This record gives sequence, C-alpha cells and structure tokens, in this order.
Amino acid sequence: MEKKVYLDNAATTYVSTEVLNEMMPCFNVFYGNSNSVHSFGREAAGLVDRARDRIARAINAKSNEIYFTSGGTEADNWAIKGIAHAYSFKGKHIITSKIEHSAVLEACKSLEKEGFEVTYLPVDSNGLVSLAELIHAIRKDTILISIMAVNNEVGTIQNIKAIGKTAKENNIIFHTDAVQAFGSLKIDVVDMEIDAMSLSSHKIYGPKGVGALYVRNGIKIENIIDGGHQERGRRGGTTNVPGVVGFGKAAEIAVRDMPLFNQKIKSLRDYFIREITAKIPYITINGHMHQKVNNIVNVSFELVDNEAVLLMLDFEGIAVSTGSACLAGAVEPSYVLTSMGLDSELVKGAVRFSFGRSTTKADIDYTVEKLVEIIEKLRKISPQTKAGRKGDK
Amino acid sequence: MEKKVYLDNAATTYVSTEVLNEMMPCFNVFYGNSNSVHSFGREAAGLVDRARDRIARAINAKSNEIYFTSGGTEADNWAIKGIAHAYSFKGKHIITSKIEHSAVLEACKSLEKEGFEVTYLPVDSNGLVSLAELIHAIRKDTILISIMAVNNEVGTIQNIKAIGKTAKENNIIFHTDAVQAFGSLKIDVVDMEIDAMSLSSHKIYGPKGVGALYVRNGIKIENIIDGGHQERGRRGGTTNVPGVVGFGKAAEIAVRDMPLFNQKIKSLRDYFIREITAKIPYITINGHMHQKVNNIVNVSFELVDNEAVLLMLDFEGIAVSTGSACLAGAVEPSYVLTSMGLDSELVKGAVRFSFGRSTTKADIDYTVEKLVEIIEKLRKISPQTKAGRKGDK
Repeated sequence: MEKKVYLDNAATTYVSTEVLNEMMPCFNVFYGNSNSVHSFGREAAGLVDRARDRIARAINAKSNEIYFTSGGTEADNWAIKGIAHAYSFKGKHIITSKIEHSAVLEACKSLEKEGFEVTYLPVDSNGLVSLAELIHAIRKDTILISIMAVNNEVGTIQNIKAIGKTAKENNIIFHTDAVQAFGSLKIDVVDMEIDAMSLSSHKIYGPKGVGALYVRNGIKIENIIDGGHQERGRRGGTTNVPGVVGFGKAAEIAVRDMPLFNQKIKSLRDYFIREITAKIPYITINGHMHQKVNNIVNVSFELVDNEAVLLMLDFEGIAVSTGSACLAGAVEPSYVLTSMGLDSELVKGAVRFSFGRSTTKADIDYTVEKLVEIIEKLRKISPQTKAGRKGDK
Repeated sequence: MEKKVYLDNAATTYVSTEVLNEMMPCFNVFYGNSNSVHSFGREAAGLVDRARDRIARAINAKSNEIYFTSGGTEADNWAIKGIAHAYSFKGKHIITSKIEHSAVLEACKSLEKEGFEVTYLPVDSNGLVSLAELIHAIRKDTILISIMAVNNEVGTIQNIKAIGKTAKENNIIFHTDAVQAFGSLKIDVVDMEIDAMSLSSHKIYGPKGVGALYVRNGIKIENIIDGGHQERGRRGGTTNVPGVVGFGKAAEIAVRDMPLFNQKIKSLRDYFIREITAKIPYITINGHMHQKVNNIVNVSFELVDNEAVLLMLDFEGIAVSTGSACLAGAVEPSYVLTSMGLDSELVKGAVRFSFGRSTTKADIDYTVEKLVEIIEKLRKISPQTKAGRKGDK
C-alpha cells in the first residue's frame, strides 16, 4: 500500500472511534427531531442536552450559554454580525486583528458595507497583537473586540486573558474565535472574561458540519438564521443530533486528553524542528517561539515556492498545507505571514505542518527524508538560487 | 419489547442503511477537508462533487447551481435575505404566504425590520394560495415571491408551475421552500421556472444538519455566512463531507424510488383515512382532498385537545405531532390551520400523522385501535361534549 502521512490536522481531523460510536445510534435508532414532544423527540433532546453540558463543562460555561451551529464559520458570522447589530445603538466601531480567520474578516467587511467601522490591529513578527495598540484603538463607540485565541496558520497564542480584562474594563464585548485553540489550550471563559466564543468540532476529532457559539448570559445577540424555537429561539433549524452528540463527546475527550496530547505532540514537534533545522539550510520557523500551540509548525523554505513543495510532498503521500484550507487555491500570498512582516520571499516559501493524535515519529522521519530531497531538487531549478543565495554556497 | 410506531416522518426520518453506508468512510477514511489541495482533500472534493451532481440531477438543475447549507432553514434564510439584499436597489417588496414554514416567515419579519415590505397572501380552506390574489399583490417594487411547494402541516401542494410562470412574466424572482415536497413530488426547476429552492436532507432519509439552496445561474444573492472560498465563495465553512455525501445519496434514492414510495404510502394513507372515518365520529381531514402529498394526513378530532391526543398516543408508543416540530411546545394554535379558516375548536383538535418508508399496515391498525380508545376516553371527560355535541348523541 502507498504510504500516507497526514500532517494537515489544523485543516481537519478524522472522526475518532469513540466519537463515531457515540454518534452511530443517532442516525437510525435515536433519530427523532429533538424538538418533538414524543418519546423519539425526548430521547434525542436528552442526547442534545448532554452534549451541550459537555461543551459547557469543557470551557467552564453554563449549558444555557452554548448554542449549536453548523461550524466555526457560522459561529464567527453570528457572533460578529449578531452582536454588532444588537449593540449598534451604542456605537458602530469594532476592533479585530489583521490575522483573524477569513470568517471573522469577511463578517467585518460585510458590516463595513453597512456603515460599521472596523479597526484591524497589526501584529508583531511573532503574530502577537499588542495590548497597548488594542487599548489605543478603543474609542467611545467601540462595541466589540474580536481577537482569535490561536492563529490557524502559525499557532501563536494571543494574550486572551489580558484582552478580556481590557474589554471588560472598557465595557466592550469580547469575542474570540477559539476554533484552533480548542483541544490544545485550556480555555476558561470565566477566568478569561470572554463574552462570546466560536468553537468547531472537526478540528478535535469530531464530525464536520457542527460547531458552537458560547454567548455569556446577559449579552444580547441578533439571530442570523431565523426559524423555529430551536436553541431557545436563537438559531432555527432542526438540530443536527448526531453531529452535536459527536461534538460533545469529542470536546469531552479533547479536554480529558489535552495534557497527554500536548506532551506527545510537543515532543514530535521539537523533533521535527530539530531534524529540519539540522538537515535543511535556509529555513525559518514562523510564529512565536514559545507562546504557541504544539501542533502547528509553519516553516519558510527560502528559494522555493510553497505550492511546489506541497504538490511534491503530496506526490509522496504527505499532506501539508500552505495556510488556511479555507483559502486554498487562492492566488494571494498568506495575509497572516504578510501581516507579521515576513519578507515576501519567505511568505512564498511557507508551509504549514500540523500534527495530530495519530502522527508518529516514523511519519516525521519519512516527511523529513522527503522534504530534504524535495527542497534540494526545487532549489536546484530555482532561478533565485543562482542569483540570490549564490554567494552563500 | 415495547411497541413503537413512528408516524412523524414529516418532522424527520431515520438515516437509511444505503445512505449511512455511503457516509461512513467519510468520517475516518476520506476525512480530508474538501478545500485542501492534497490527495486527502481531492478525494473529499470528488465525493462532494458527486453529491452535488446527484442533487442537481434530482431537480433538473446544473451542478453549479447547487450550494450546500446546514439545512432547509439556513437555505430559506439565505434565499430570502440574500436575494432581498441583492435586489433591494430595484425595490423592497416581497410576496409570500401566511402558511410558510417559520424559517421563511421569520426571515421575512427580519427584513421588515430593515424596511422591506412583505405581503403575506391568505390561503383558502384547502391551504391553497390563489393565483389571482398573487397577481393582484404584485407591485412595481416587488422583487421576490416565496411560496412553499408543499405545506408541512397539511401536505397541500401549491400551483408551483403557475406561480413560477407568473413570477417570470413579471420579472420577479421566485423562491420555493421545497423541503417537504422533495421526495414526494417531482420537481423540475426548469419546467417550473423556479429561480431559487430550499432543500433538506433529513426529511428524505438523509442525515440532519445538511441541506441545499438551488440558485439559478444569473440570479444574484448576497451571502449570509461569509468566510473562505467554499461553495464558490458564496457560503463559508468547511464542507460537511459526510453530510453532503449522505444527502446526495438520499436524494438519488428518493427520486429513484418516488413512484413506488408514493404508491405504497397512498394505499396506507387511504386505508388509515377509511379506518378512522369509519371508527371515529366527528373528525375532519384537513388540507386539499387531492392536491396534496400522500405522506401527510392532518386530522381534526372534535372536542379533544390535540396535545392530550399526542401525549396519550406517545404513552402507547405512537409518535405523531400537532404540527411543525420546529414550533413544538408553542402555546399558540397552528397558524397554518388558522389561516385556512378552520374553526378554533378544529385547530385545537388537529393532529398530524406522517407516514414513511417503514410504515406498515400493522402500524396503522395499532394506531387506529389506540386512537379509537383515546378519543373516546378524552371525549368522555371533555366538558364540551356535555355542552356542545350532547344533542347529537
């Protein structure tokens, strides 16, 4: 059999067996509509309640602060547009960062068309938002701050607790996109003073097509998907019972196994970085050195094109990415790396490796072996090698 | 084992084995993000493409006119808000009916708050929108007509082709919520001149949490869920690959088996109506006598409260509903039946029985047997029986 190494776990993960086993009966045994009054409905509703409790427990929220959605993107859209509309009477200014997920950025752009004003904070070369700059950006009419917990391309962890405190002191609502953080980082919405938070299931070995928005009790939010009485009247549509059940189980497992997972992944990550640093010249590890999650390594290979690296690794059965899967196929270079001030050549040569539960040392060895060959091959044919780095050799 | 009879197939259905078998590998074998460039992603993308083709074929659309959503409710919200916003430069008037699904009605109400005007057409006692009244309601600034294909509470089929023709002649966009129609009624978007149509998977033995919006090429629509490049940039969020694959298979099967399914269900339905008509006095079958789908029977039992009937049937293991599951638990009587001009006593006594693939004659016999007992019991204790119908006995 052809060798397959999946190092794109930040794009999506497989559904774990434990999760799948929990979902299965919901397809054809407990298949009721969780809104129905009869026993089939009550059974399904009980499963949904349990899933909601599990999500709430995973982030130290109350169950009635969890609203299920179709994923992180819907949660981001809902949070940003819903909160902006609910508080537009107070002001129309929003603060976010330049390196947010496209769901947040596009939701903000859509609000700009309606007359809202958005400040996109810069980040430093580590991908960190400066608290001083955040405070400086706050205006009298600022109603919402949305800063992601962990960046999906480079893994940098923002100072969420400090941002939460700042938002609270200024009486501004704080939303965080925690899609990439969940399962890698302990999140306590009370301690971190988070008012709204987006979560997704398919990054933590749960099914695709389901996510959640946490909204602190007392925070107002307008609906974006109107309909029936589901989710306490805040999000219409028949509840995706198997999805929600799978998500709940995945969240429970993710939090339970987080210490072990992080330890394992850190050791693989450090090994990978040591190996490529030793064996491949002219590389840069992007993102913060320490304040980052363990499962994402973003590397710039000088003098090569990341799309070529991706395709040649793919040919060897190794799956990596050049950034967010949501923007795959885009012609534009990564806005995240560009915002971090990386040289355009480094942006062009940036590859994201993201590790997961099933990643082994053998996977890393195989990947490093192939990477060495591929980078060497690509550099040989690169016109830049002859012009630029010639003197170094 | 306790006897269980599920007669709430209009609320949701189980996932069929054929569908589930098709979905299973997507959870942990073909688990890539369909937006990723590598082989895991391309595999997933291929499965999504095939599913899109299947949905398109089922309604005679082109594949690039199908956009996957998280369900019928999202599709309704997207169609109505997205089309209204895209054409608001032309006018701000929308025509719909009083008996639409809550997703359509609530989306319209949300637009009213923004300054759109909505005409809610009445229906006759059969639940039919009058074409004459529709034509009369058309104004110069009418940009959208949204009329459902089949009503979910009573099963009445609207004159979709005539409405499509009228909309076209008047240069107005025509959207139909076909969630309850799909699988029971042949739908041809070309022949019926439909510009946009909402579909759902979990009513046709596909998984919950997935649906689609058909948008005819050339029709403009604004996004409601912004984000990455998914669904050709029109709907952000990682594609729910297992869900979409299940939906595609379910649609293929639904269209393939429709003639047989309808024949079987019609015979059960007619048998059910004959039985209850013969054995239970003072009942009314609601909805159109002929122009309706076979799987929904809405019956008003005079002098009883439908919630009591539902609970007592549930106690016997029989699942039915008093209307839309999306509004279950609502204190208000059915707005659909009220709009059809039913006497409030008949509305209060209305129960929906909806049949499915697994419904058997034995299920009907058991249900009729229990219904006879329950209605008799409830009428004995009803204060109205003594006051109202006494003279009849």
